[in-house]
Amino acid sequence: MSNQGFHVAVVGATGAVGQQMLETLANRDFPIRELTLLSSARSAGKAILFKGEEVIVQEAKPESFEGVDIALFSAGGSISKELAPEAAKRGAIAIDNTSAFRMDPEVPLVVPEVNKEDLRQHKGIIANPNCSTIQMVAALEPLRQAYGLKKVVVSTYQAVSGAGAKAVQELNDQTKAIVEGKEFQPEILPVGSDKKHYQIAFNAIPQIDKFEENGFTFEEMKMINETKKIMHMPELKVAATCVRLPIATGHSESLYFEVEATGVTTTDIQAKLKDAPGIVLEDNPSEQVYPMPANCVGKIDVFVGRIRKDLDEDTGFHMWVVSDNLLKGAAWNSVQIAETLVEMGLVEAK
Amino acid sequence: MSNQGFHVAVVGATGAVGQQMLETLANRDFPIRELTLLSSARSAGKAILFKGEEVIVQEAKPESFEGVDIALFSAGGSISKELAPEAAKRGAIAIDNTSAFRMDPEVPLVVPEVNKEDLRQHKGIIANPNCSTIQMVAALEPLRQAYGLKKVVVSTYQAVSGAGAKAVQELNDQTKAIVEGKEFQPEILPVGSDKKHYQIAFNAIPQIDKFEENGFTFEEMKMINETKKIMHMPELKVAATCVRLPIATGHSESLYFEVEATGVTTTDIQAKLKDAPGIVLEDNPSEQVYPMPANCVGKIDVFVGRIRKDLDEDTGFHMWVVSDNLLKGAAWNSVQIAETLVEMGLVEAK
Repeated sequence: MSNQGFHVAVVGATGAVGQQMLETLANRDFPIRELTLLSSARSAGKAILFKGEEVIVQEAKPESFEGVDIALFSAGGSISKELAPEAAKRGAIAIDNTSAFRMDPEVPLVVPEVNKEDLRQHKGIIANPNCSTIQMVAALEPLRQAYGLKKVVVSTYQAVSGAGAKAVQELNDQTKAIVEGKEFQPEILPVGSDKKHYQIAFNAIPQIDKFEENGFTFEEMKMINETKKIMHMPELKVAATCVRLPIATGHSESLYFEVEATGVTTTDIQAKLKDAPGIVLEDNPSEQVYPMPANCVGKIDVFVGRIRKDLDEDTGFHMWVVSDNLLKGAAWNSVQIAETLVEMGLVEAK
Repeated sequence: MSNQGFHVAVVGATGAVGQQMLETLANRDFPIRELTLLSSARSAGKAILFKGEEVIVQEAKPESFEGVDIALFSAGGSISKELAPEAAKRGAIAIDNTSAFRMDPEVPLVVPEVNKEDLRQHKGIIANPNCSTIQMVAALEPLRQAYGLKKVVVSTYQAVSGAGAKAVQELNDQTKAIVEGKEFQPEILPVGSDKKHYQIAFNAIPQIDKFEENGFTFEEMKMINETKKIMHMPELKVAATCVRLPIATGHSESLYFEVEATGVTTTDIQAKLKDAPGIVLEDNPSEQVYPMPANCVGKIDVFVGRIRKDLDEDTGFHMWVVSDNLLKGAAWNSVQIAETLVEMGLVEAK
């Protein structure tokens, strides 16, 4: 910590994403004058090391945000609903990683590479999109800018860490049990609070979050609705199928998309993505170069490969998009929003 | 074995699919008068139990097919290329599970639920389609019949047993090594004969089979070309992305497809699939009922769920299709072709 910079609060500091946020703030050397770590009453009192200094976690309350400049929320939707407005009321900018405010028309939903200008409209709360949405729109935006975008069909290959630390533990425990020939009882996945739980080890579960009436899951509807909002394209055709897999960290996505422009080539798409911010092109089939979740863990970029033109539609393309769901999908995008607020002069230290 | 029935040969009897073929022949009580088990010289001499009787495996040679009525091939493409014509020359019908003859215009490529009438055109060789193709066309055919079919975009979630027994061993060994914190060296997946090998445990590899010049893999092109041939629809728009996952057995597929007819509902699609041969509908989101690979192992059916109408396209739908890739995807479809030949009077015991 230094004498200059911002008073930053992290709400949910002891959780999986909270920990990643602290690590990212440290790695990025974000200018922090004072750091307040907040959590539920249960975790209050714990000591957490930040850049070699011990910080004691306090119970999050409305008055915890007095004097705070930037509050990063990742402690569940109900905490955000209660406390993000309290933080905003006290002059802090709340950057919320839950789904509580994402579709609120008053709240910007931001992926900096795509729509950082929306930050100018904030009224104290900024929402961080769903992990699977972030990496998809980051990869699509350079193509939308260059060629227009008509339609997206995505099938996801999502890691269990998106469902929290307990889900990762369940994958590990189940895998160990199966390897050792022991019994096990699924208790968390696909959705902790849903009625039934299924084996995730060596399996694929086509359910992430609960089901809506229309047969899509909430996760699928998040991808659909958030994409339209972030890209400012209410007319964009988007469909999603979200699947949970026995992978600890790293979401992959198989995308089919159609651009407006005709005559675009695979090489054109590769060139646009090669120069795009936050994107790493890994696309050389003859050398078996393509992104994989095992290679993306711990990296902040979005990795794109397997780009190829559809064999039937002149405007259709396929690609494979991989990213660390805890970093670009959560902690890094939140910290990146904070960095962007600073760059754009939209936040001042009190 | 009985005094009546057919002289059946199984080529590749000691392999993973060969074993499943023998089990399926026994389970289905296929009428076998005489059983000849064939393999490479290396495996010749082994004894295999079939319905309680020991059968000694012999080295496969052209003359091995003298007197054979039906020869089931699953010993690799080069063996089929060499010996299936030799079997046919000697009056046997060769049912070939490799890709050697699939796209040969003289060779019927058959999924009995879809195009059994094509069997009438056979000239001694009948091809069994690729595993990922079979379950997809079985699920699409009842919908094509009822509503027409314009376009299919599929992303697959494929099990390692499709790459052979060594790939299953690699998944198991790697998983164990990671659980125990030991080192490991990928040696088989994604493709044994390709240049590079990657970790499959807790990972997703977007490569099955080698790459073609157009950026698609051979597996993806198999799905595209075989689907058009089996459904007799050269004009059908089909695109595929094939992904290998840390699952031992059971392929899953996320399908987006467009029908010709307008005004079709999700309920219509469900009703057609409920009554379709070889299909089991598992589709009740409110009770979290949907197919999963862990539940399909050892079953011969194709399981379909997550059926829902696209939110933008009146003719567009999504569904999730799961099947045991070693059974309907290989052994069972081959034996089912043999059963269908018998039912249709297209094979006679010598």
